Amino acid sequence: MSGILFDRIALIGIGLIGSSIARDIKALGLAGEVVISTRSPETLKRAEELALGDRYTTSAAEAVRDADLVIVSVPVGSSGLVAEQIAPNLKPGAILTDVGSTKASVIAQMAPHVPEGVHFIPGHPLAGTEKSGPDAGFEGLFRGRWCIFTPLPETDEAALGRLRNFWIALGSKIDEMDPQHHDKVLAIVSHLPHIIAYNIVGTADDLETVTESEVIKYSASGFRDFTRLAASDPTMWRDVCLHNKDAILEMLARFSEDLAYLQRAIRWGEGDKLFELFSRTRTIRRSIVQAGQDVDAPDFGRHALDPKA
Amino acid sequence: MSGILFDRIALIGIGLIGSSIARDIKALGLAGEVVISTRSPETLKRAEELALGDRYTTSAAEAVRDADLVIVSVPVGSSGLVAEQIAPNLKPGAILTDVGSTKASVIAQMAPHVPEGVHFIPGHPLAGTEKSGPDAGFEGLFRGRWCIFTPLPETDEAALGRLRNFWIALGSKIDEMDPQHHDKVLAIVSHLPHIIAYNIVGTADDLETVTESEVIKYSASGFRDFTRLAASDPTMWRDVCLHNKDAILEMLARFSEDLAYLQRAIRWGEGDKLFELFSRTRTIRRSIVQAGQDVDAPDFGRHALDPKA
Repeated sequence: MSGILFDRIALIGIGLIGSSIARDIKALGLAGEVVISTRSPETLKRAEELALGDRYTTSAAEAVRDADLVIVSVPVGSSGLVAEQIAPNLKPGAILTDVGSTKASVIAQMAPHVPEGVHFIPGHPLAGTEKSGPDAGFEGLFRGRWCIFTPLPETDEAALGRLRNFWIALGSKIDEMDPQHHDKVLAIVSHLPHIIAYNIVGTADDLETVTESEVIKYSASGFRDFTRLAASDPTMWRDVCLHNKDAILEMLARFSEDLAYLQRAIRWGEGDKLFELFSRTRTIRRSIVQAGQDVDAPDFGRHALDPKA
Repeated sequence: MSGILFDRIALIGIGLIGSSIARDIKALGLAGEVVISTRSPETLKRAEELALGDRYTTSAAEAVRDADLVIVSVPVGSSGLVAEQIAPNLKPGAILTDVGSTKASVIAQMAPHVPEGVHFIPGHPLAGTEKSGPDAGFEGLFRGRWCIFTPLPETDEAALGRLRNFWIALGSKIDEMDPQHHDKVLAIVSHLPHIIAYNIVGTADDLETVTESEVIKYSASGFRDFTRLAASDPTMWRDVCLHNKDAILEMLARFSEDLAYLQRAIRWGEGDKLFELFSRTRTIRRSIVQAGQDVDAPDFGRHALDPKA
């Protein structure tokens, strides 16, 4: 699975995702040379200190020159600007991909800028943690995780094959779907959970009858599970909300409708309705563990890691 | 911290909590004798196979005879019935406590049955996992966790001290508050999170545009965090919803109001409002980790446990 797959790879954006890709490329020897670019001089300096690449520049346009593979890992709201900046310097035959959590919007922003002869293949590795920045990345982040491509109709099969091999080398499993379906799937499995988590933490933060220190102190009884997602990168998630609006609003409407039903059952003491829902949801957890998508250990295995245990 | 604290302890209910208490009592040698009772003959048999106690009976009334400490660990909706059954056999001077997640309702159900001379001290250890039943319990579940007492005004200080020492021996940290405040605190840190988790998993289960197998397959991108709480014991949670109705409905109303505000911000593209909330919630996570109430490892440390990693 190792050996050089691309002579030169340019990484635009070097946060959690970009820096994890950089670490894997290096560990596996997948590129002749890695060029790293980010707008922030401080972040770029940190990337250099961490020795994540071979060359460093704050200019995305400079970074992509002669690159065979360009991976854009920026908040989805910045995709269009990046595409516009790098377009004139993209090498004919190069593969351009991204890692954005929304796909229809990224395609709408980037595709118009992509020159003839460059293979633009939108992608989305379903991996990450609640941490952000170049220090948060680590080797093996993508191992055993899905990477979804949403290729355009005119996509070159050979280029797609090369990009697929790259992600397979990082340990990912590959899927393909159309961008609209991707955005609906992600709205329910990722965007709604994050929005709900942000919301409940906000609600708790605003209470007058229960103090914030009480919320923190007793958070292990359920609340803390939500605080992990609610600690995710605010810029990234603002952009996701703004760029997958329709699918998110649809899922939010359904969620609220279901919550109203549940609320009514609580108000009127309809124990059977509550029991029915609370039983049904158990089986999904079991399927997720069986599918290898979560650990089987109680409490996410925290007990094993907890210094107090 | 070890040595016999009570000559005879009766455990009524032997699920995750009861069986964890039993394991700790045994490991630490805190009782001369442990009598275990549960209504279900199958569960009782399992408790015996696991050697959780010294004597076993399906009759709660039998179990409490001559016990110095009686711990009721049943779904809160059953507290009243249990109190009624055991009342005639409670020994004068005995301590009667419970572990229920709601306190005002448990007091209203149990207190009227408690005979003169018996010390009824309602309690709530904030510990547990999403698993249930006698096999799910383990030694050390309460270590480093809070145990909240909601003593009645007439509570005997010496009895309270003895019960406090028992939970301290199990490794718990002790707090005291009035039952109404307990119910409000738990509504936000525990009950609302569970209800929201059950609800979002139900919403995902009902979609027509995204299949259940897609939800499972891609759940690692956020959704799976909710499925853990949504796999909790349905009977326990039905009872919690029905027995802490007022506080839960208040928290649900606030949550829904906040969610409507967030939804509107998404619809109208108000990025600054989203960014403000998404930044504010980050600091709560940090405080929870600092307070030792969650592990600092990214992704709850799953990566370290994940067989795919």
